[in-house]
Amino acid sequence: MIVAHPELQASGTQQFLKEAAHSADGVTWHPLKWVNTNDNAIIGQERKMLQNYTRIILQFPLYWYQAPALLLQWLAVVLHTDDEQKMAEKELGIVVNIGQPLSDYRLGGSQGFSLSELLSPFAAIARRLKMKLLPLFVIEQFHYQQENQKKHLLVEYLQYLELEQPFTFAKKEEWFIKHLQQIINSESKNEVEESTWNAVLELFQERSEELAELKAEIKIMRRDDENQI
Amino acid sequence: MIVAHPELQASGTQQFLKEAAHSADGVTWHPLKWVNTNDNAIIGQERKMLQNYTRIILQFPLYWYQAPALLLQWLAVVLHTDDEQKMAEKELGIVVNIGQPLSDYRLGGSQGFSLSELLSPFAAIARRLKMKLLPLFVIEQFHYQQENQKKHLLVEYLQYLELEQPFTFAKKEEWFIKHLQQIINSESKNEVEESTWNAVLELFQERSEELAELKAEIKIMRRDDENQI
Repeated sequence: MIVAHPELQASGTQQFLKEAAHSADGVTWHPLKWVNTNDNAIIGQERKMLQNYTRIILQFPLYWYQAPALLLQWLAVVLHTDDEQKMAEKELGIVVNIGQPLSDYRLGGSQGFSLSELLSPFAAIARRLKMKLLPLFVIEQFHYQQENQKKHLLVEYLQYLELEQPFTFAKKEEWFIKHLQQIINSESKNEVEESTWNAVLELFQERSEELAELKAEIKIMRRDDENQI
Repeated sequence: MIVAHPELQASGTQQFLKEAAHSADGVTWHPLKWVNTNDNAIIGQERKMLQNYTRIILQFPLYWYQAPALLLQWLAVVLHTDDEQKMAEKELGIVVNIGQPLSDYRLGGSQGFSLSELLSPFAAIARRLKMKLLPLFVIEQFHYQQENQKKHLLVEYLQYLELEQPFTFAKKEEWFIKHLQQIINSESKNEVEESTWNAVLELFQERSEELAELKAEIKIMRRDDENQI
């Protein structure tokens, strides 16, 4: 989790995400500082850090439709174009936050370009280093988000950090059940609370089974359809 | 002409372009320095400079498929997203130099993305500020270029800086004739040299007339064809 924000402390979005990331397993929050081209000790440290992780997530706000200068300077100094062997097979994720609605970023939208176009240099980097690019994670207009939207964001963000790729529905369910169980086991609760949480968990597992049955049925129906052709 | 190169003095490409730009009319070569977010005096100067020109050209090498951090920092500090009124109708040009052949930058090419995709943030900037985006000017593998390729580059580059948009063939011809006449008038030459230059100019003008006649003929032929349908 490489965080590039010129004014990290002042950013409400980043402070929110930081708190979330700290509750995730095996995630290191690494805020970027300006790296001097000649500071080989720091460059070595940064390069070594990259080696230690299998999923590298670059997190930044968009400035003039691009990543901040801070991140580009860091990339230019720390990452070499011949790092393919070191970086191959690692995952590259992008968490980008924007001040406008995501729907502005499309053909004919007020920004006129999609984020996938604007951030294509990162796809080119992943391609060059044979890294696996994760789906773009976009946070839109954090400051306008309601409390329940933020809760939803928190869950999606944690899944982005923790879940194995590809992010299937089944894996997301598993993740939910695991986290619910953790809540039930870890926190000191009175009996009423505990039973409530247990009920939620049971309900969730039940639904999950129902859903699996539903999927199986659809599969059979499809096969029948195909056989009729 | 805003030049963003982290090691400007050491860049042979940039020194070559600098010499060329100095021979052009009304062109200011402005190398970027790091601008501190709080340095309002410098920021004011840079903003005022932008007001004084109708064609603004950003010139830079590509680092990790993007403009250098130096340029992005300058953009973030100097240009405001509400500068539309100040920047509208100005022209925005991009001169980018790449170390690989241009043909690598395409679908299925070794870089996998076109420069037009990778540099789309600049198209988004132009769009946002209602500036007219000039066609991308690409310098590929300058250090492998032969002497005659560099001469060709020089001419194209000067035309990019000086010529009115759109860059039609007729305007390029006019530009050539003007420059040949300048050479003939300005330099001290012996008679033989002078007559040679005059011969070149005459030949060029003659060809230019021939070409105009040819074009007119094609136009008539096309019209005839259309009438027969």
